[in-house]
Amino acid sequence: MYSFNNDYSEGAHPKILEAITRTNLVQNGGYGMDEHCNRAREIIRQEIGREDADVHFIVGGTQTNLITIGTALRPWQAVICVVQGHINVHETGAIEATGHKVLTMPGKDGKLTPDDIIQALDYHTDEHMVQPKMVYISNSTETGTQYTKAELESLHHLCREKELYLFLDGARLGSALTSPVNDLAMKDIAALTDVFYIGGTKAGALFGEALVISHPELKPDFRFMVKQRGALLAKGWLLGIQFEELFTDGLYYELASHSNDMAKILREGIKDCGYSFASPAFTNQLFPIFPEAVIKTLQKDFVFSIQEKGEERSVIRLVTSWATSKEECGHFLSVLKTCSI
Amino acid sequence: MYSFNNDYSEGAHPKILEAITRTNLVQNGGYGMDEHCNRAREIIRQEIGREDADVHFIVGGTQTNLITIGTALRPWQAVICVVQGHINVHETGAIEATGHKVLTMPGKDGKLTPDDIIQALDYHTDEHMVQPKMVYISNSTETGTQYTKAELESLHHLCREKELYLFLDGARLGSALTSPVNDLAMKDIAALTDVFYIGGTKAGALFGEALVISHPELKPDFRFMVKQRGALLAKGWLLGIQFEELFTDGLYYELASHSNDMAKILREGIKDCGYSFASPAFTNQLFPIFPEAVIKTLQKDFVFSIQEKGEERSVIRLVTSWATSKEECGHFLSVLKTCSI
Amino acid sequence: MYSFNNDYSEGAHPKILEAITRTNLVQNGGYGMDEHCNRAREIIRQEIGREDADVHFIVGGTQTNLITIGTALRPWQAVICVVQGHINVHETGAIEATGHKVLTMPGKDGKLTPDDIIQALDYHTDEHMVQPKMVYISNSTETGTQYTKAELESLHHLCREKELYLFLDGARLGSALTSPVNDLAMKDIAALTDVFYIGGTKAGALFGEALVISHPELKPDFRFMVKQRGALLAKGWLLGIQFEELFTDGLYYELASHSNDMAKILREGIKDCGYSFASPAFTNQLFPIFPEAVIKTLQKDFVFSIQEKGEERSVIRLVTSWATSKEECGHFLSVLKTCSI
Amino acid sequence: MYSFNNDYSEGAHPKILEAITRTNLVQNGGYGMDEHCNRAREIIRQEIGREDADVHFIVGGTQTNLITIGTALRPWQAVICVVQGHINVHETGAIEATGHKVLTMPGKDGKLTPDDIIQALDYHTDEHMVQPKMVYISNSTETGTQYTKAELESLHHLCREKELYLFLDGARLGSALTSPVNDLAMKDIAALTDVFYIGGTKAGALFGEALVISHPELKPDFRFMVKQRGALLAKGWLLGIQFEELFTDGLYYELASHSNDMAKILREGIKDCGYSFASPAFTNQLFPIFPEAVIKTLQKDFVFSIQEKGEERSVIRLVTSWATSKEECGHFLSVLKTCSI
Repeated sequence: MYSFNNDYSEGAHPKILEAITRTNLVQNGGYGMDEHCNRAREIIRQEIGREDADVHFIVGGTQTNLITIGTALRPWQAVICVVQGHINVHETGAIEATGHKVLTMPGKDGKLTPDDIIQALDYHTDEHMVQPKMVYISNSTETGTQYTKAELESLHHLCREKELYLFLDGARLGSALTSPVNDLAMKDIAALTDVFYIGGTKAGALFGEALVISHPELKPDFRFMVKQRGALLAKGWLLGIQFEELFTDGLYYELASHSNDMAKILREGIKDCGYSFASPAFTNQLFPIFPEAVIKTLQKDFVFSIQEKGEERSVIRLVTSWATSKEECGHFLSVLKTCSI
Repeated sequence: MYSFNNDYSEGAHPKILEAITRTNLVQNGGYGMDEHCNRAREIIRQEIGREDADVHFIVGGTQTNLITIGTALRPWQAVICVVQGHINVHETGAIEATGHKVLTMPGKDGKLTPDDIIQALDYHTDEHMVQPKMVYISNSTETGTQYTKAELESLHHLCREKELYLFLDGARLGSALTSPVNDLAMKDIAALTDVFYIGGTKAGALFGEALVISHPELKPDFRFMVKQRGALLAKGWLLGIQFEELFTDGLYYELASHSNDMAKILREGIKDCGYSFASPAFTNQLFPIFPEAVIKTLQKDFVFSIQEKGEERSVIRLVTSWATSKEECGHFLSVLKTCSI
Repeated sequence: MYSFNNDYSEGAHPKILEAITRTNLVQNGGYGMDEHCNRAREIIRQEIGREDADVHFIVGGTQTNLITIGTALRPWQAVICVVQGHINVHETGAIEATGHKVLTMPGKDGKLTPDDIIQALDYHTDEHMVQPKMVYISNSTETGTQYTKAELESLHHLCREKELYLFLDGARLGSALTSPVNDLAMKDIAALTDVFYIGGTKAGALFGEALVISHPELKPDFRFMVKQRGALLAKGWLLGIQFEELFTDGLYYELASHSNDMAKILREGIKDCGYSFASPAFTNQLFPIFPEAVIKTLQKDFVFSIQEKGEERSVIRLVTSWATSKEECGHFLSVLKTCSI
Repeated sequence: MYSFNNDYSEGAHPKILEAITRTNLVQNGGYGMDEHCNRAREIIRQEIGREDADVHFIVGGTQTNLITIGTALRPWQAVICVVQGHINVHETGAIEATGHKVLTMPGKDGKLTPDDIIQALDYHTDEHMVQPKMVYISNSTETGTQYTKAELESLHHLCREKELYLFLDGARLGSALTSPVNDLAMKDIAALTDVFYIGGTKAGALFGEALVISHPELKPDFRFMVKQRGALLAKGWLLGIQFEELFTDGLYYELASHSNDMAKILREGIKDCGYSFASPAFTNQLFPIFPEAVIKTLQKDFVFSIQEKGEERSVIRLVTSWATSKEECGHFLSVLKTCSI
C-alpha cells in the first residue's frame, strides 16, 4: 500500500536529519533564542526582502493559526475566510476556542474574492454583530488552487482600505510558488500580506512553520502568546536548524517543485484516461472524479481520501510530496489504466 | 413617530410594576434564593407539567443563550442552528466567546429541519472537526415563523436518537403559542426539549427570561455558571415577581395574544393593499415587501427596520407587542393606503 | 428577622420606582441609546468633571468587572488586586473565564499598596509569565476600608509610570465618599483612575452600575463587548432613569450618607459594649468580633454572615444600607447589650 | 561557557536520533495513529501496569497541562496547586487562558499537602466562588523535591474521598523515580493518580510527553481537545519512536539516573565547600546559596539562573541532565573551590 493521502507521511529530507544529528550534542539556549533560530530568521528575512519582519518558529499549523488570529483580534472581532478554509473545517474549532467567530463566505475555486469581503463588511454593521477585522486565505488553497498576483494585490488593497489584517496560511506555500501557473514570488507574499507563514511540515521538514509578521500592530509581545498556547518549543533550535536547511541553496523550492512534478505526472495520466477534476488545481493536490468501481480497485494498492462521496462517482484527493517517487506515480497510473478499460 | 421596531420599546405591564412597587421595602435574600423566585418556579413547573424541571431566572436572552450553551458543551463541541439563528447573527459572537463553534444550516422558512441536522452530523466525522452536541432553535423564529407539533416532535426524536441536546429559545414563545396557526402547548415545549426558556423581556416584563432545564445532565452546578457570567441578579426577586405576575391568571398568554391580534390587523391590511410578505409569519413579526417610495413615506411617521435592502423593493420588519394599540395599527394602514394609491 | 446581611435586600428608593412608573408606557429606543441614558451620561460627566469620559450602564457588578477587564487586557495580560479582591474571591472565576489571570498581592487593611504593584512587576519578567497590565482596586474595599486621596494619588502615579491601567470598582463608592474619614471627591476618582464605576445596586437602585471610561485606549468598540457578554439591557432606559434620579439633587450621596450613619450607630454601640473590630472600617460594612454565644443570640433576630469562623470568637459582617432604619440598629444594640452582660 | 541552566540544552540521546533516521522514509499514518505510537502505548501500559489506561503523546509540557486541565474541568471549576506550581508561574497564564482559575496553596518544601487541599475546599463553599475539582502536583517538584509513597497515597485517598481528580506533572518524573531517596515505582504513580505524564523533553528526547489517563471520566473524546489546541503532531510517529526507545531496555531510567548522579557530584562538592541549599533536593535540580562574589566568578564559565536574588547571597539553580558530563561537574567544583577560599 502506497499513500497519496497527504504530504506528511514521511520524515524529513535527509539534509535536515543530518543537520540535527550533526549538532545534537551542542548546547543551545531554549525556546528559540539560539543561534540557529537567529540565523534562520536572518535567511528568511533576506528571502522575503523584509528586514523589518519578525519571524517566529512554531511546531504546527493549527497552533500557528490560532496564535496568530488570537493575537490579532480583540474579543468581539472575527476573521473572514472561504467556507472550505482550514480554520473553518479542519481545526476542531480552534479559532472559536480562542473566542472568535469564523465568518465564512462562498469564494470562487476555493479562493476568497474582494466581493466576499465587501459583502461580509456590509452585513456586519453594528455592535449586535461581530466586527470583521482579519482576512484569512491559504495559498495554495484547500482545493489545490492558487492565488494570482493580481488577485492577491486586490485583496491587499481592499484590506488596507478597510483596515483589515491579511493573513496568508502558507502550509503549502512552496507548492503554490513553484506551480507552473504561478506568477507570485516569495517577496510578493511578504509585501502583500500583514502576516503569513511558510510551512515546513508539508514541505520536507520533520515539523515546523515559520511565521512572518510584517504589520507593526501584530508584533508586540507575540512570544507571550506563543508560550501561553504551549507552542514555545523547549528545544527551539530544532526548528531553526530545519529552516536553515530549507532555505539554503533553494532546498525548499526544489522539494516543492518535485511535489508539483509528481502531481503533474498524475494529473496528465488521469486526464489521458479520460477523467475530469473537481478543481482546477496545478499544485500538489489533485481532485479527480472517479467511478466507484475504479476507486475500489485503486484502494487495493493506494491510500487516499474521499473528498466528496457521490452515488456513482466520487471526488478523491491525491497528494504528492517531496518524497513521492516517479515509480509510485507510474504504478498508480498503470492500475488506473487497467481498471479504466 | 410610533415605533414598530421591536417588542421591547415600552416598560412593563402595569400589574408587574404594581407588584414590584408593592413589595419594594420588604427584605429578600439575594441572587434568586427568595420566596418570589421560589413561587414563580413552582407556578412555572405546574404550567409546563414537569415537577422535575429546574427553573432559573436570568436578565436577558443573550446571557441565557451563552450560559446554557456554554454549560451544555464540552470545549470541542458545537451547536447547530439555522443560518438566521439569533446566536449566529445578533449576539456579537457570544457563543464563540464561550469557545464554541456555531454550525449553521440552511433550514426552511427560518426553521431547522431533521435533514439539516443529519447533514451536519454526517459531515463531522472525526477529531479534526468539531463535534455537534446541541441543536438550537427559536420559537417563534427570527423570520416570524413557528414550529408545528409534528416538526418539533421529529426534531425531538432525532436529537434523542443522536444524543444531541435540544434547546429552544423562547424569547417570543408566547407569540408562537398564541398564534392562530399554532398546535403546540406549553407542556409540549417542555416535553419535547431538553432545555428552553420563556421570554419575559419581549412579553411584557421589564426584563427577564425563565430558563427551564429538563435534561438531568444540564442541571448540576448551573448557578455557578450563571454567577460566573455575571447573570445572577443581586435583587433576584425582581425576576421572580415578574414571572409570578405573568403566570397568574394567564397574563402571559393574554399579552402575547394581543400582540398577535395587532399583527393580524397589520397583516391583513397590508395584504388588502396588495403587498406580499417575505416570510409566512403568523406571529408578532411581519416582513412585508414594499417599494422604496412607500417605505420613505412610512418612515415619516413610523420607526421600523429594513430587513433586506433591495434595489426597487425592500423587506421591512414590523413588530407588534403587548403594548401596541389598535389605533396605531390603524394609523399605519391609513398611511400605507394613502401612499399605495 | 431583620437582615444586616447586605445592602441589596430591599428594592429601590421610591423616587426611582416613581420615575420608572411615570415613564412606563413611553416608547424608547433599545440598548441604552435613548434619551434617559443620554441625559444620565451628561449628568454623570458633569458630576465627575470630565466631559471626555464615556459612560456605559450595565446591570451588575460582576458583568461590569469582567467586561472592563476583558476589554482592557490582551490575552497574555493579567490584573493585579489584593487577595480579598471581589474579582479574586466572589465572582466564581469570572475574570479567569475571560482568559486572564488575577495576580493577588497581600495589601494592607484590604487596600493595595504601591509596593504590592512593584513587587508584582518585578516578579513578572519575561514571556514565560503573564504580563501585568491592569490594577484593580475597590473603594470602599471588601473589608470596609477606604483609600485616602494620598493613597489613590500614589497608585495613580505608579500606574501611569508603569503603563498600567487603574480600575476602581465602585460598587460601594457612595459609602466611601460620604464616610467621616473620607478626603476624596467624585472628581478625584475620575481624575485619578483610567476607568471606574459608580455602583447603583448597593446604593438604592433596583440594579445598575455606571461605568466611566477616561482612558482613550479603553473606549473604542466597548459596546461590542457589552453586547457579547450579554450585558446590553434591551430596555436600557431603565438604567438611565435610575442614574438620572440618583444624581439629581444629590440623592446618591444622601442615601450613601444614611447607610454610613446607620453603620456609625452600630459601630459606636458595639464599641460601647466592649467589642473590637477586625477591620478599621468607617463605611457601611462593619466587622465586629463576637463570642460564639453572642453570635448565637443575635442570630435569633438578625441575619448576617460569618466572615471568619474562629474557635471561641468569630468575625461577623454587618452591612447597613439606604433602607436601614435607626430602629433596627437600636434593636440590634439592645439585643447585643442583653447578651453581653 | 557550559550551561547548567536546564535539562533541555542538548538534542536527544543518540539511540533516539538513530531510530528516527532509520525509519525516516517509511510512510506512516498521521496524527499519532501509527504503529510506532501504538507500540509505544503498549510498552507504556505494561511499564505502568495498567492495561486500561489511555496514552496520548504531546509535544510539550505546557500543552499537556492546558489540554488535560481544560478537558477535566467544567467552566466554573478550578485546579489546586502549590504557589510555585509550574502552571501557576511559568506558563504565561495558559490555564487561565482555558478559562480556569489556579487556586494556590502554600505547600511544604514545594509539595502540596492534604491540609492545603482541605483548606481550599473549606473556603470554597458556594456558587459565588469557583469549585475546586482537580489537584495538580509535580514530581519532582519545582524546587527539586519529591513525593514519598506515603505522601502520594494520602493525596490519592483525599482526592478520591472529595471527588477531585489528581493530576501529576511528570516533566521530571524520571529524576524523581531514580533519586536516592525515592520509594515510589512507576506503577505507584499510575495507581495513585487519575492522570499523569511521563516527560520526554527533559529526559533525553528531542521533545514529547506521554500522557497517561486512568480515570474513565477523562478519556472520552480526548483527541478532539488535543487537536483543537494545536497539539496533534502531523508526523505523530516521531513521538511514538522516541518513547519506544526510552522504554526499551530501561533507557529512560538510565538517563534519569545519570542526571541524578551528576547532581550528586555537584551537591556533595558544594556541601564540602561549606555552602548550604535553599531546598532539600535529591533530584537533578539543586538550589545552592552562594555569596555574590562567588556567583560572579562562576558566571564567567557557567550559565545558570538566579532563583532568588538576595542582598549578599542569592539562591541559584543548577540543573543536570542525561547529557551532563562528569568533567563539567568537576570543572564547576574546581572553580567553586578556587573562589571559595
